[in-house]
Amino acid sequence: MSRPGALFLSEIRRQPHAIGRLLEHTSEYDAVAAEITKRAPAPIRLVGHGSSDAAASYGVYAFGVLAGLTAMRDSISLTTYYGAKLDVSNSAVIALSQSGQTQDVVEYVTRMRARGAFTVALTNDPRSALAEAANATLPLLAGPERSVAASKTYMNQLASLALLAGGAGGKVRKIADGLRRVTEQMTEMLGPLGLRAAEIAPAFTYVERMFVIGRGFELATAREVALKLTETCRVAAEPLTATDLAHGPVAAIEALFPVWAIASHDETLAAVIEATVRARAAGATLVASGSAASKIPNAAFLLPVPRPPQPAFAPFLSVVAGQLFAAALAGSKGLDADRPEQLTKVTLAQ
Amino acid sequence: MSRPGALFLSEIRRQPHAIGRLLEHTSEYDAVAAEITKRAPAPIRLVGHGSSDAAASYGVYAFGVLAGLTAMRDSISLTTYYGAKLDVSNSAVIALSQSGQTQDVVEYVTRMRARGAFTVALTNDPRSALAEAANATLPLLAGPERSVAASKTYMNQLASLALLAGGAGGKVRKIADGLRRVTEQMTEMLGPLGLRAAEIAPAFTYVERMFVIGRGFELATAREVALKLTETCRVAAEPLTATDLAHGPVAAIEALFPVWAIASHDETLAAVIEATVRARAAGATLVASGSAASKIPNAAFLLPVPRPPQPAFAPFLSVVAGQLFAAALAGSKGLDADRPEQLTKVTLAQ
Repeated sequence: MSRPGALFLSEIRRQPHAIGRLLEHTSEYDAVAAEITKRAPAPIRLVGHGSSDAAASYGVYAFGVLAGLTAMRDSISLTTYYGAKLDVSNSAVIALSQSGQTQDVVEYVTRMRARGAFTVALTNDPRSALAEAANATLPLLAGPERSVAASKTYMNQLASLALLAGGAGGKVRKIADGLRRVTEQMTEMLGPLGLRAAEIAPAFTYVERMFVIGRGFELATAREVALKLTETCRVAAEPLTATDLAHGPVAAIEALFPVWAIASHDETLAAVIEATVRARAAGATLVASGSAASKIPNAAFLLPVPRPPQPAFAPFLSVVAGQLFAAALAGSKGLDADRPEQLTKVTLAQ
Repeated sequence: MSRPGALFLSEIRRQPHAIGRLLEHTSEYDAVAAEITKRAPAPIRLVGHGSSDAAASYGVYAFGVLAGLTAMRDSISLTTYYGAKLDVSNSAVIALSQSGQTQDVVEYVTRMRARGAFTVALTNDPRSALAEAANATLPLLAGPERSVAASKTYMNQLASLALLAGGAGGKVRKIADGLRRVTEQMTEMLGPLGLRAAEIAPAFTYVERMFVIGRGFELATAREVALKLTETCRVAAEPLTATDLAHGPVAAIEALFPVWAIASHDETLAAVIEATVRARAAGATLVASGSAASKIPNAAFLLPVPRPPQPAFAPFLSVVAGQLFAAALAGSKGLDADRPEQLTKVTLAQ
């Protein structure tokens, strides 16, 4: 048995390599993107649970910004439980599942395909039930993931969605080249960022709740960082858009309620800064991450990352700060990030 | 100045009356529903923040189940910040805002309308900027709402969406009749449910975090109850679908981390029960509400509500249990639900 958290940390560090492996299959992604584009302007339906659903949030922005297409995180239960009679004959479905065994996702894809939708499985296991059910399967190629808390899988889900959206926008080569540059930036930053996270984390050992805010592309990062903190560190970390913080939740903030802000150099930065100013005024300790971390006034802790070649790639780097912080904080709390209580790698819940 | 929380409580009690006022305008809703239906199968785009966004979650299920139409909670920032070039020429937009002054919602509607979408404003103020910006305005008629924490507005947003979805499904009269019955059930239950909530709430005086779970129609209730607990009681209450609880967050649960489950008599009940069993196994104290509250095994506290004429109406009754509980808990904590710190009635944040 490995040292607690060793698998999680080693898999975080393998992420540039995992993305690199995926990029060798760019042309397969481009071919499926062409099939998806044929269905426009019908919405692209993204489904998944947990980390996969956080990645789906990224897909909404990737398809919107890179291809001008509407993508939505679809309700699984509307179809699987309520049997809603939606007209999906011209829709594309992208189903995300690490294991390809998530029951209700498989059921959803089966029903959507029967109704005429073009269904795509994104999974690490090309022989899984999900791959069987879908019209097309694209390999995630995250490699064996032995820590229960996912990292490489989430990262390659982002990369897959960026390639599909880039393909749909007719610029898959540019996206693949950009992602290659991102893997270099990630490789360079991993060491120093890990040290910085390990310095900061101990101050949060007794923290029980947190808000994690981001907007636009970085909403996916907020959701994934909050999930990592919740499952590996037992912190009740709630993801919110920077704007939603002001619409109610800011009222709960006090000095012992830290707020983690993801600030990147893009069109949403001013809104994120405004939200952090309100959170600070309410007494919150601020943790600022992202490429524009230094733009957050009065942040107590900074976890900056490099600025990627274009804003669409920001979540690839920002999330690593949260992963490394979660790994370090789990250590400070004496928890094993590789084997959180109550969880298993494949979730079979309905 | 009124007694702390008195406005919130009195407005909760006025909700049956507010719905009744809206139902006098059923034919206006039916007419707009016909316009929305013309755009199918293009997705109906719902936007709003805070409580309005929770109501939008209800809209996704109402349009899906009652009319077989795809509705989605659209990203505001994709359009207002990133300027994504989506093809929305055949879309319908429903924008929800109590005040009609929420800046980015107004901006979103303005841009969508310019691109050819049919835009509908649902607001209490027919002379607001939002009403000006939209093609059509439907009156919410919640009446003056003086408590910062919304109740009547959320309730009438649900009713509005039910009428629109019912109209789109060609059964607006049946929906209006059902809602009339629901207002009777609500009126009868308000007294006893308020007493029950006041008995239970003191045990939660020192609770700092909670998960609120629901699925399908009741996801809206989970989101709205969590928001009320957060803004009026300063509890970090995170809404989750029953399934998402199992995909990570269950790992954070311990004995001091209560889980509020909304259990109603519909196709999702088994999934909700399964999630509560896992939460209880992890040590959580369970609060069960909804018409099927008594079906949750080992719930420590029950806040049951009557079974409505059809599952689509369940959220109208379930949310009242959460509102009354939040009002009582704010009292136990010595907080003023009418005037939470850091919040104002009209949120102007970006």
